[in-house]
Amino acid sequence: MSGKVICAGLGPGDPDLMSLRAARVIGSARHIAYFRKEGRAGQARRIVEGMLHPEAVEYPMEYPVTTELPFDSPEYTDALARFYDDWANRLAALAATEDVVVLCEGDPFFYGSFMHLHSRLQGRVPVEVIPGITGMTGCWHATDTPITWGDDVLTVLMGTLPEEDLVRHMANADALVVMKTGRNLPRVRRALERVGRLDAAWLVERGTMPNQRVARLVDVDASDCPYFAIVLVHGHGRRPELPE
Amino acid sequence: MSGKVICAGLGPGDPDLMSLRAARVIGSARHIAYFRKEGRAGQARRIVEGMLHPEAVEYPMEYPVTTELPFDSPEYTDALARFYDDWANRLAALAATEDVVVLCEGDPFFYGSFMHLHSRLQGRVPVEVIPGITGMTGCWHATDTPITWGDDVLTVLMGTLPEEDLVRHMANADALVVMKTGRNLPRVRRALERVGRLDAAWLVERGTMPNQRVARLVDVDASDCPYFAIVLVHGHGRRPELPE
Ligand SMILES: C[S@@+](CC[C@H](N)C(=O)[O-])C[C@H]1O[C@@H](n2cnc3c(N)ncnc32)[C@H](O)[C@@H]1O
Ligand SMILES: C[S@@+](CC[C@H](N)C(=O)[O-])C[C@H]1O[C@@H](n2cnc3c(N)ncnc32)[C@H](O)[C@@H]1O
Repeated sequence: MSGKVICAGLGPGDPDLMSLRAARVIGSARHIAYFRKEGRAGQARRIVEGMLHPEAVEYPMEYPVTTELPFDSPEYTDALARFYDDWANRLAALAATEDVVVLCEGDPFFYGSFMHLHSRLQGRVPVEVIPGITGMTGCWHATDTPITWGDDVLTVLMGTLPEEDLVRHMANADALVVMKTGRNLPRVRRALERVGRLDAAWLVERGTMPNQRVARLVDVDASDCPYFAIVLVHGHGRRPELPE
Repeated sequence: MSGKVICAGLGPGDPDLMSLRAARVIGSARHIAYFRKEGRAGQARRIVEGMLHPEAVEYPMEYPVTTELPFDSPEYTDALARFYDDWANRLAALAATEDVVVLCEGDPFFYGSFMHLHSRLQGRVPVEVIPGITGMTGCWHATDTPITWGDDVLTVLMGTLPEEDLVRHMANADALVVMKTGRNLPRVRRALERVGRLDAAWLVERGTMPNQRVARLVDVDASDCPYFAIVLVHGHGRRPELPE
């Protein structure tokens, strides 16, 4: 008897936006793992509240404590690598006999933490990954406005990038998505202002979650932005949409 | 009594990747509309095969015939505008008394044809849009490889763009998605070759559909590419992924 590791993409937050396959796999799993910060409930776990099998055993994978170490120090990077190594070992051991389901917000292959386990599990146990609706998709729906038309160019940026990189990319694309805003929001805002696109930008906090908030970025206090937040600039289409 | 127009995102093709909400709405709808080319079954309709309510009435919205008119002629653009106007009127009339569900491949707000009805329906009847997993997400899962890591920049391009635009954007991003390849594939291929990225490119035809095909672009006959096809170049991450 042998199992596999199944990573289920949860979508942007509203449990009703999960795929049929993910919901089925999550509801029947006997082993459920998910990332969270120490002492927090964890967004992934919150999304599946009420859906788990009564006998499911839970494995919260808590990121190593980070207060003493700077995020970009070699020590912190090492601690993180060991953390992923350990969990890859534990999940592989579980999967030797039974299926284990790993929860992942949005789509697992789109900037997801699961990818660090995925690469470590290759060749050791069977791994299956279930796609999910990305957080950015949930966020552009929260604005009730299409993100791209015709032959618009869409660029996805991380708020962690240096300001000059942000500016260069923001000046070149029609539609923009900026993720990992959080404490980077003041820099993201400055970059949008420099390319003359601040007035067209929206901030979506916790898209499709119960406490969703949608605002024009220009109206927002940039010093107070949660982790689950995305900045959007919608495209407007450069040519009419034509069927091929 | 009054209804609404509900556009349901179907996801990339595999019906099991539809959201719980979309599946529920589709299974109970009495009026179902979908775009298709004249004389074709239509991809959207194919995805929901076996899911429809036995009493559902179907409204295939057939794109105006296109053989005599060049795609970019004012005549064709006019014919298309009239087509969207007519269907917006018909759907608004139906929704005056009952809900009507419009099917849309992938996510409706991501380069979707429904957006042309959405803009025409504003202020006339209530419109609800259900997000879906995008085709590109289905395609990167078909390659079983993450598309973006760390602070990778992802750019989404349409194969309809001029070669110089493709080259400029392809040179600047870490990860690439090129949609609407089809007959544009030779130009897309030349652009990738010019920026030295052809060897890293994958072609995914009909991602997550029964006849899915995944190949290195360099191994493919570029003159023969279906409409549902996407070119991908995966990112590799420029810095380690760190939790905030
Ligand atoms: C490590 S990335 C993970 C992305 C995820 N795999 C996805 O497909 O959306 C985390 C970032 O995703 C964004 N994000 C994900 N879901 C979101 C949501 N529902 N609302 C706002 N931002 C979200 C935030 O910008 C956050 O900083
Ligand atoms: C008009 S766009 C519609 C996109 C759709 N709304 C989405 O979210 O994916 C049509 C293009 O989407 C791409 N596409 C959508 N689904 C696909 C799939 N399952 N496999 C390959 N390409 C797909 C193709 O490049 C196609 O030319």
